[in-house]
Amino acid sequence: MDLQPAPSLAERPQAELNPTAEKLLGAASDLMIERNSLEISLSEIAQRSGVNSALVKYHFGNKEGLLLALLARDARSEVRNLDYLLAQPISPSAKLKLHIAGIIKAYRRFPYMNRLIHLLLHASSAQAAAEVSDFFVRPLFEFQRRLLEAGVAAGEFRAVDPVHFYTCLVGACDHLFFGRPAMSRAVGVGAITDDECGDYIAFMTDLIFNGVVNGCPAAGPPRHFV
Amino acid sequence: MDLQPAPSLAERPQAELNPTAEKLLGAASDLMIERNSLEISLSEIAQRSGVNSALVKYHFGNKEGLLLALLARDARSEVRNLDYLLAQPISPSAKLKLHIAGIIKAYRRFPYMNRLIHLLLHASSAQAAAEVSDFFVRPLFEFQRRLLEAGVAAGEFRAVDPVHFYTCLVGACDHLFFGRPAMSRAVGVGAITDDECGDYIAFMTDLIFNGVVNGCPAAGPPRHFV
Repeated sequence: MDLQPAPSLAERPQAELNPTAEKLLGAASDLMIERNSLEISLSEIAQRSGVNSALVKYHFGNKEGLLLALLARDARSEVRNLDYLLAQPISPSAKLKLHIAGIIKAYRRFPYMNRLIHLLLHASSAQAAAEVSDFFVRPLFEFQRRLLEAGVAAGEFRAVDPVHFYTCLVGACDHLFFGRPAMSRAVGVGAITDDECGDYIAFMTDLIFNGVVNGCPAAGPPRHFV
Repeated sequence: MDLQPAPSLAERPQAELNPTAEKLLGAASDLMIERNSLEISLSEIAQRSGVNSALVKYHFGNKEGLLLALLARDARSEVRNLDYLLAQPISPSAKLKLHIAGIIKAYRRFPYMNRLIHLLLHASSAQAAAEVSDFFVRPLFEFQRRLLEAGVAAGEFRAVDPVHFYTCLVGACDHLFFGRPAMSRAVGVGAITDDECGDYIAFMTDLIFNGVVNGCPAAGPPRHFV
């Protein structure tokens, strides 16, 4: 079989439209979520999807190509949502609230996302690393930077460092999923349900808007009692 | 050579006193920090430490044993610090400030810690997973739970869910290090310096005490301008 090199992320915007490629990406995503780990092999992906493993090479070139395409698939709709949100005629505070909920829901759908970004930045080609940055990290950071600026301009937010803000929000939201097995074992909490997700959205929103000290007005009565 | 099974974490409190074992743990720690990855082999650890690889087996049984001992080494002094801090005759707010700084400094020393916890919980024996939980996750959670309770009792904090608080603080602090390669590439920020660490401590403290909205009194003038 004459295998062509995998096209770059930018050259394959329609990858999601090919049913075989979609099946393979869906199988990879399912396996990563089930195992809470990126340790999956191409043959496992092929087996799960019912697709001949030669077609992995045909569609994606190699495992790096498949993982990049998976990240692109997952990131595409999220980045589109950011553009949409930023353009809405609502206050920066209202946008920030929607963004906090949006980022937690994105990690609920794709809990492996930050490990995948890290892996692709470290263990892959320079081109793959650049694509990860261009297609996912930078748009998310730029969205937050502009939103924080707008909030300061509107007199709604204090000025904070956008790199710190990004680091904190991404890390805190991601850890709901990444850290859950440790918390389940140590404290006996169960898996992440829709309710738990909603509670964490409320907690993070309250934290970012009000902190935990008593001096600040809470958005409402505290939802959680220890 | 007659190799004995590795003793459990609880049975080897003095592991840190054996110079050869310490050398091996130091080499493992250095390699993980350099690569920002847990992907290191026993032979690489032996080579870096200048210790015969048979002694890895002698001291730790296998790689899991070595990684557990490394986590125990790193966690021991941190958990001791928590006990000390909780007993101090200062306000819950002052303790929380010191804790935020302490946790960020701990991840600066051991940036691989959360990946290591995750790996040991997933890819290891039930005994190892239980030890990870007992020796690290639960003491940290219990410290925070008691501190939050004390803060509410003192009228200093609003009541918040301690599981959410733990998740947010650990995730946000860890991501300063785990997420840095992605931020460096996307936004051009450099490596984590002492100054950057101090700035992030100030940011997290401000966030947890005051949120980012203007209505709340900031601890001081904003430190960061975008």
